[in-house]
Amino acid sequence: MSRRWIALAVAPLAMVACQKAETPEQAVTRMQTESAAARTVIEAQGALEARFINENKADSLSLLFVETGVMMPPGAPAVTGREAIAASMRSQPMPPGSQLAFTVLTVTANGPLAVERGSYVFTMPNPRRGQPAITTNGKYLTHWHKVGDQWLMAESSWSDDVPATAPPGN
Amino acid sequence: MSRRWIALAVAPLAMVACQKAETPEQAVTRMQTESAAARTVIEAQGALEARFINENKADSLSLLFVETGVMMPPGAPAVTGREAIAASMRSQPMPPGSQLAFTVLTVTANGPLAVERGSYVFTMPNPRRGQPAITTNGKYLTHWHKVGDQWLMAESSWSDDVPATAPPGN
Repeated sequence: MSRRWIALAVAPLAMVACQKAETPEQAVTRMQTESAAARTVIEAQGALEARFINENKADSLSLLFVETGVMMPPGAPAVTGREAIAASMRSQPMPPGSQLAFTVLTVTANGPLAVERGSYVFTMPNPRRGQPAITTNGKYLTHWHKVGDQWLMAESSWSDDVPATAPPGN
Repeated sequence: MSRRWIALAVAPLAMVACQKAETPEQAVTRMQTESAAARTVIEAQGALEARFINENKADSLSLLFVETGVMMPPGAPAVTGREAIAASMRSQPMPPGSQLAFTVLTVTANGPLAVERGSYVFTMPNPRRGQPAITTNGKYLTHWHKVGDQWLMAESSWSDDVPATAPPGN
């Protein structure tokens, strides 16, 4: 057996314990696959998030964030941590009859890190009786982190697509 | 030479062409190192961004985004693509004497994907002569993408920490 043949015979054994360094092209393909897989889970988590907001389930909502998660609401300072997020939601419950819905636009994932961009529609009953419901469109950007098998929100920022109107009476 | 010795002799050759699969702990350490390196570059890019905004350099600002970058301003729909970003900035130049400054709070990177969270301070002269300048604090979340050696913005969302005030005269 020549040295060359010995090397060829041993190579497959070495391959079991290691893998080739990823090329940039392979990284792109892997990230596309991971992003598609993450999107499915994140889409489901987003549907849960909308449900918890619509039903004023503050604790359930906070559990969709990582322990040190940061919520970044327009017109107020950032809110850090599950407890503060739940308290913030309890202090500002959804107006009765209001409805929030998300649409996922893009998800970019690499390993345990993902970024989601989407849009939302917020509908609330018109305070003037008999008038059509008031609809506000907006956009959001969320940083997700995979903890074990779960994708949780690490940071989320959003804003309406229209300037805020002064509160009624002003 | 026994088979065992042959395998040990060949193993280092095989190691040149491949690397061991990363353990979760190794991934955390690698991401910490990558995040620290990305932070240095992203901090410099953010300083450039603030300068281009303060000097109304719309084209230079747009080149800090990837070609299909998305700017997500409060009170307006998302703006997609370098050309639209530059046009948007040209149509809404910074008021003379205004100043925007960013502070980076966290950067989380994994390979070519990074998420930055930070805060901003926007200062503008008071329209009432002799009154102190008006300062607005805010927060932002930016998705960065590494293109070649450069970190560029893919998506950026932000909002003020205080509710928008009605325009003067309303």
